[in-house]
Amino acid sequence: MIQSATAQASPNIAFIKYWGNRDASLRLPQNGSISMNLAGLHAKTTVTFDPELQSDSFTLNQRPIHGPGLQRVSSFLDHIRSLSGSATRAAVTSENNFPTGAGIASSAAAFAALALAGTAAIGLNLTEAALSRLARLGSGSASRSIPGGFVEWQAGTGDEDSYAFSLAPAEHWPLVDCIAVVSSGHKPTGSTEGHALADTSPLQAARVADTPRRLDICRQAILDRDFTALAEIIEHDSSLMHAVMMTSRPPLFYWEPASLTLMKLIPQLRKDGLKAAFTLDAGANVHVICAPECADQVEQALRRVAGVQRVLRAVCGSGAFLVPPQA
Amino acid sequence: MIQSATAQASPNIAFIKYWGNRDASLRLPQNGSISMNLAGLHAKTTVTFDPELQSDSFTLNQRPIHGPGLQRVSSFLDHIRSLSGSATRAAVTSENNFPTGAGIASSAAAFAALALAGTAAIGLNLTEAALSRLARLGSGSASRSIPGGFVEWQAGTGDEDSYAFSLAPAEHWPLVDCIAVVSSGHKPTGSTEGHALADTSPLQAARVADTPRRLDICRQAILDRDFTALAEIIEHDSSLMHAVMMTSRPPLFYWEPASLTLMKLIPQLRKDGLKAAFTLDAGANVHVICAPECADQVEQALRRVAGVQRVLRAVCGSGAFLVPPQA
Repeated sequence: MIQSATAQASPNIAFIKYWGNRDASLRLPQNGSISMNLAGLHAKTTVTFDPELQSDSFTLNQRPIHGPGLQRVSSFLDHIRSLSGSATRAAVTSENNFPTGAGIASSAAAFAALALAGTAAIGLNLTEAALSRLARLGSGSASRSIPGGFVEWQAGTGDEDSYAFSLAPAEHWPLVDCIAVVSSGHKPTGSTEGHALADTSPLQAARVADTPRRLDICRQAILDRDFTALAEIIEHDSSLMHAVMMTSRPPLFYWEPASLTLMKLIPQLRKDGLKAAFTLDAGANVHVICAPECADQVEQALRRVAGVQRVLRAVCGSGAFLVPPQA
Repeated sequence: MIQSATAQASPNIAFIKYWGNRDASLRLPQNGSISMNLAGLHAKTTVTFDPELQSDSFTLNQRPIHGPGLQRVSSFLDHIRSLSGSATRAAVTSENNFPTGAGIASSAAAFAALALAGTAAIGLNLTEAALSRLARLGSGSASRSIPGGFVEWQAGTGDEDSYAFSLAPAEHWPLVDCIAVVSSGHKPTGSTEGHALADTSPLQAARVADTPRRLDICRQAILDRDFTALAEIIEHDSSLMHAVMMTSRPPLFYWEPASLTLMKLIPQLRKDGLKAAFTLDAGANVHVICAPECADQVEQALRRVAGVQRVLRAVCGSGAFLVPPQA
C-alpha cells in the first residue's frame, strides 16, 4: 500500500539561542532556547512510503539529492520506521519558498515538515511533544518549528523531555522579522560542525550557566508584550552566542562588515523611537525583529544600508501543519 | 628651588589584554597581561616643580588642559608628592608624536612618561618595579610602558606586587605593529568607564579564570619566537576581550565594519604564508603584529582595504627613559 502525506513548516528565529549539544547524536542541547516561527517562509514536504521502492529518495526544489543530504533524510526516516515497525522505503519531495543560499537556515523547517509528513504518511498520530522530540533528532532547532507562535525548547533531562512547546500563539503579538540579507553566496561552517566547537570556547560554560536568567527575561517579555525588554535580551543573547563562536578554536566569525553596520544601526533606530531589535543566527544575515507598526520604516532603513542585498519579511506564524491532498 | 626632568615613553599593544579591575581606585587588574612597547610612537613629558606655582598646570601638544584632564594629572602628581614628602606644585608639558584622536591609546605612554619625569624631577630614584606600580595608578596599562621590550604585568595580590617587568628586551624579536587606522573621529567609551562595565558581562569571570592559560602560551611563544603560537593566542585573546565588551550591559561595540574586514583578512594572509596576526584594544583600529620581513607586504595589503584611513608603523621598543636636558 502506498501511503502519502504532505506537511508544511516554517523556519524559526531564535530569541534565546541554541548553541552546543550535551549529546550530539540525540541533539540534546546544553541550554534551553526560545524562538518565533516565521510565517511566509516555509518548507512543504511530501513523504510517500511505497513497498515497491528499493531505497529512499529525496528531491529538493525539483533537484534529486544524493550523498550526505539523502543520507541525513534517510537516517531520519529510519526513526519514523522504527516508531511504526515498518521497513518500507519512501520518496521525499520538498520545496522551500525562500531563496536557498540566502543564509536562511532551512533545516529547522525541513525536518519539522519531514517529521510531520513522515509520521502522518506511515499512519502514526504523535502528540505535539513527541513530534517535536522526533524533529529534534533531524535538526535541533526543528523541534521549535513544530509548535506554533512563540516557542520554548526545554533542554530537558534526556531524549524524553527535550522538546518544544508553545509559549503563546502567533496572534498574541504579531511581530515582524525583517531579514537583511548581507551574504548569500558564502557558505560558512554548518551548524552541526559549529555546535561541536562550542566547548572549545572558554566562554561557553558561562554562557550556558547564564541561560536560565535570559530565558526568564525573554519569556516574560513575550508574555507581557514588552518590546524594550525583548529587544535588550535578544540582542544580548545573540552577542553571547557569537562571542562563543568567535572565541572557539578554530574561531567562527559569521559576521560580515554589513552585519556590524546593522548591529550598530538598530539600537540607534530604537533610541529614535522605532521598535526594532537585531539577532543573528549562525550566519551573517541580520534578523530585525520589529513591532508591526514599525516594519515599513525598518525595512526602508535596512534597504538604505550598503551591503544589504535584499530584505525578506516574515511574521510570527503557526507551527507545522498537514496539507490536505489536492483535489 | 625649581626642579625639572624630561622623560619619554611609548604606548604598548597588549597581546594578552587587561580588562576589568578588582580595585578601580588602585587600578588592580582582574587578570595579568602581556604587551609589547611601540617604539616610534611616544609621549615626551617635562615636569617642573616650582615653589612659586600656586597650582599644577598641564599643557598637551602646546594646548593648556583644564578640567578633568588636568585633575587626573594633578591627582597623579599628588602620589609623587606624597612619596617625596613635598607639597610643591608642578608645570607639566607633554608632546605626543602620534596623531591624537587616531584611536591610539595615549594614556599608557602619558602616565609612564609622567611617572618617570615627575619622580626624577622631585629627586626620587625609584626601582623599575616601583615606577611601574606608580604609573599603574595613573592608567593601568601605563605600568607596562615602564619596562622595555616584551612586558608582563602581574596581577599581584595588592598594590605592592601589581607591577610589570620585562620578559625579553626589544632586540629579542623585532616584531612590527602595522596599525590600520579605521576610525579617527569617533570617540568610543573610554577605558576607565569600560573597565567598570566588565563585570556586567556574564562572560568576564570565565575570561579572567582562563587567563593563566593564555599568559603561559603567550609568554612561551615570545620566548621561543614562535610566531604561529603567538598569532593564535593574541587573536584569541583579543576576541575574548571584545566578547566581554559586546556582552556588557550596556554593550560596548568598539569594532567598525572595516575592523571586521581586517579580522577576516589577516588569518587569510597568514594561511598564504605571511607572518601577521591581529589584535584590537578598546577601539576600532586593528593592530597587525608581524614579523619584520613581512611588514612591507602587510602594510601594502592593509592600505588596499576600504575603510583603512592610514597605516602607522611601530616596532618593538624600549621602556620609559629620561631625556637629558638639551644643551
